[in-house]
Amino acid sequence: MNLAALLADLGDVPVITDPAIVRKRSRDFFWYSPILNAQLADKSADLIAAPRTEAEVIRVAGACARHRVPLTVRAGGTGNYGQAVPLEGGVLLDITGLSAIEWMRPGALRVQAGAMLNAVDAAMQPHGWELRMHPSTRRTATVGGFVAGGSGGIGSVTYGGLREPGNIHAARIVTVEPEPRVIELRADAAQKINRAYGTTGIITALEMPLAPAWEWIELVIAFDTFLDAARFGLDAALSDGIVKKLLSPVDAAITPYFGALKSACPPGRAALIAMVAEPSLESFKTLLAGRGTITHEAPADEHGGRVPLYEYTWNHTTLQVLKTDRSVTYLQCLYPHDRLLESVARMNAMFPDEVLPHLEFIRFAGRVTCSALPVVRYTTPERLDEIIALHEAAGVHIANPHVYTLEDGSRYKRVDADQLGLKHEVDPYGLLNPGKMRSYVPAAA
Amino acid sequence: MNLAALLADLGDVPVITDPAIVRKRSRDFFWYSPILNAQLADKSADLIAAPRTEAEVIRVAGACARHRVPLTVRAGGTGNYGQAVPLEGGVLLDITGLSAIEWMRPGALRVQAGAMLNAVDAAMQPHGWELRMHPSTRRTATVGGFVAGGSGGIGSVTYGGLREPGNIHAARIVTVEPEPRVIELRADAAQKINRAYGTTGIITALEMPLAPAWEWIELVIAFDTFLDAARFGLDAALSDGIVKKLLSPVDAAITPYFGALKSACPPGRAALIAMVAEPSLESFKTLLAGRGTITHEAPADEHGGRVPLYEYTWNHTTLQVLKTDRSVTYLQCLYPHDRLLESVARMNAMFPDEVLPHLEFIRFAGRVTCSALPVVRYTTPERLDEIIALHEAAGVHIANPHVYTLEDGSRYKRVDADQLGLKHEVDPYGLLNPGKMRSYVPAAA
Ligand SMILES: Cc1cc2nc3c(=O)[nH]c(=O)nc-3n(C[C@@H](O)[C@@H](O)[C@H](O)COP(=O)(O)OP(=O)(O)OC[C@H]3O[C@@H](n4cnc5c(N)ncnc54)[C@H](O)[C@@H]3O)c2cc1C
Ligand SMILES: Cc1cc2nc3c(=O)[nH]c(=O)nc-3n(C[C@@H](O)[C@@H](O)[C@H](O)COP(=O)(O)OP(=O)(O)OC[C@H]3O[C@@H](n4cnc5c(N)ncnc54)[C@H](O)[C@@H]3O)c2cc1C
Repeated sequence: MNLAALLADLGDVPVITDPAIVRKRSRDFFWYSPILNAQLADKSADLIAAPRTEAEVIRVAGACARHRVPLTVRAGGTGNYGQAVPLEGGVLLDITGLSAIEWMRPGALRVQAGAMLNAVDAAMQPHGWELRMHPSTRRTATVGGFVAGGSGGIGSVTYGGLREPGNIHAARIVTVEPEPRVIELRADAAQKINRAYGTTGIITALEMPLAPAWEWIELVIAFDTFLDAARFGLDAALSDGIVKKLLSPVDAAITPYFGALKSACPPGRAALIAMVAEPSLESFKTLLAGRGTITHEAPADEHGGRVPLYEYTWNHTTLQVLKTDRSVTYLQCLYPHDRLLESVARMNAMFPDEVLPHLEFIRFAGRVTCSALPVVRYTTPERLDEIIALHEAAGVHIANPHVYTLEDGSRYKRVDADQLGLKHEVDPYGLLNPGKMRSYVPAAA
Repeated sequence: MNLAALLADLGDVPVITDPAIVRKRSRDFFWYSPILNAQLADKSADLIAAPRTEAEVIRVAGACARHRVPLTVRAGGTGNYGQAVPLEGGVLLDITGLSAIEWMRPGALRVQAGAMLNAVDAAMQPHGWELRMHPSTRRTATVGGFVAGGSGGIGSVTYGGLREPGNIHAARIVTVEPEPRVIELRADAAQKINRAYGTTGIITALEMPLAPAWEWIELVIAFDTFLDAARFGLDAALSDGIVKKLLSPVDAAITPYFGALKSACPPGRAALIAMVAEPSLESFKTLLAGRGTITHEAPADEHGGRVPLYEYTWNHTTLQVLKTDRSVTYLQCLYPHDRLLESVARMNAMFPDEVLPHLEFIRFAGRVTCSALPVVRYTTPERLDEIIALHEAAGVHIANPHVYTLEDGSRYKRVDADQLGLKHEVDPYGLLNPGKMRSYVPAAA
């Protein structure tokens, strides 16, 4: 790796070479996983390049290709399987300098990939729109990082995940070749960059659908048992006349770790965390009809640094526990949509006090089902593997969050064929985030 | 029935007594059914009262109660099971004088019951909103008539029918008692007036949820077979990322009757009629990916009396055929959501050339399924009953459109207990649309 020659080629693209900063930025939230923590702790890029325009992105990409230097894109750095960790050093391309909104029209916008999710929502709000969905890291993650490294989140109870047709309208990417090309991927084709960890091109812009920016009401509801919370969550999820953005049942064993929210979580009772559109609130409460007790109800409001309720849901649930108990970890499950509650009950009975249940209602391929991010009291890698195997034997799919390759982390244990195809096209030397797409063998050298 | 005394009591409420007009307005679209046509053709009210305010509605209701005169509400008169036909004469209360919008706010409005559906949508449009759903009679029916006599329609592919929690926020009703009361029914309680044919109170105002007023693109897509159209329709219905309002597969045996639309329906091919939000159009077409041929595509636009595409769908499909062939009639089916396409294929094979298939994709209790309004080549009442029985034996529910009582027309063959309860409360003498709620026996006399 000829870094000096590379640096010369970068011209006036801002660069950081201070090893302390570079090492720090080469990390993400992989430490969530005790297994990944052991594997990734010492990885680092050699330098950070921070382009301010697409032209500068092209300059960095071309230089990396000519000098055969690995290039890993980093955005908010909130991935939690080491998605943005450069396994083979090289350049860490900080994309957050590209953050402009290119255009918006009713129902859609085009934005540069490095824009922060909360900045995009704040800019759309006065027009009555917002992104359809966001990860629970809305305050720290980017649009491009979500599309390249995430899967779904708050809003997926209505729209499904990013992978559903219509949830990514288009992506613009820069290839890593001596003369980089700029390619526009539209509709289905844009899925080739979804959750590819930046191995299939540097995303510079995204066209995303928008949803009405409702006045969202945040609620915490206490239930006698976790299954009561899940049963009501399912009824609410199935109510197409009730507009909602979040339905998250959390077990009574988890809520004691909920810091500021603890007062809304009576000991020994399960909680359902919800976001409901104000005009649907009355119908939502009528559906609840005494099955649970509302312990918190307020309009969503992040002004003055107030912590949004969704920061207790999705992957944040585990983070809340990790804040006081570093010994836990988590899993990512997808429940089958038929006999959903039976499956949930069965899995919960299987690991008392070890796998602490937490569900997220979502739509998946048009059906209401649950994603689950249970908190796991970690003992050994072998036991973790056993827990995963027992879930899969029971028909509950696992996207393993304790591995860093696309293949091992997928429910299917292989990379999408379309993504592999695009990879060959845009990254002939295998320089983009090397080591993450295991199936890929570079054609050129 | 002392009509002279009643008339005196009505004061200056506008009244029509001309028998020709009264007889004409005592009819609706029951002639769709050869069976109802025979039963209802000679029914008529004695007079029409046309109140202009809720105070005048109360005056009519009180007078009818005191003089024990039947009272049947009539709005647009587009029901097709004789919902608004007075079986025992008396007063036909024309509610269309109450048509004001009381208020609107983002996501909800409150409107007087006699407002026309298209007028409401036109008034909401500049604010970026519209009703979530409407029957295919949007241009001639009222909000109150839809809620009291209908079930769902264009929009139900996203929001389900009117019966889903959240699809009616509240109703204000006037009782039929010597001193009428005004009652506000909210959330769940408002379901007691849904599809009760006006037997459970005179609705004067409704609070309804609103949906974003998308730019809707109307499409006709030709498919080789009806099942191809249904299969694609299901895929599109299951795509939560694609915003749509209508997905209606229609058999090749029906489209030749489609007048102006015939040019978009190639002979021998099935059609899918669709309404898709403009920002979702590209994803919708990508999903189509050559499985069918788009033969018509244009923004929805009813200006200058242009016929909207939805007037070829829902109950209008049968009307289009009836325009040239008075010998046909129809059924109303609800398919099971599991093994949907298998059931559709099975039923279609059972009655070739006799039951001509036409589906409407809807959400029902949170699941994607189909309502079906097939066109039936009518022979005898016995054969019609047999066709109904064969559907039910195959697990396809029928809401029989050839009967005029609530009970016989329901899938459960009984009236909702809540509705029966409200009936006793608001109509002690059994004067509201008598004969439609069979189970009801008046307590007073
Ligand atoms: C507490 C917590 C909660 C979380 N909750 C959720 C959740 O609810 N839903 C969810 O899906 N995920 C969740 N995540 C994971 C993470 O995917 C999201 O936080 C977010 O999508 C990452 O965005 P980012 O900007 O931080 O991207 P980064 O972490 O910087 O990058 C993520 C991946 O995308 C690549 N990438 C980033 N930008 C580009 C680009 N412009 N071009 C090409 N590749 C690029 C990176 O190389 C990396 O592989 C959570 C993580 C944490 C720590
Ligand atoms: C061609 C055609 C297509 C149709 N398509 C659909 C469809 O897609 N979906 C659907 O659900 N229906 C459909 N219908 C049936 C009909 O229900 C709808 O057209 C509409 O809902 C009726 O509204 P209206 O104003 O004409 O009511 P009317 O026909 O006047 O009344 C309907 C019933 O409601 C009662 N009613 C009306 N207003 C009030 C009030 N203010 N208070 C108390 N009771 C009242 C009447 O007494 C009557 O029983 C269709 C009918 C036809 C003829």
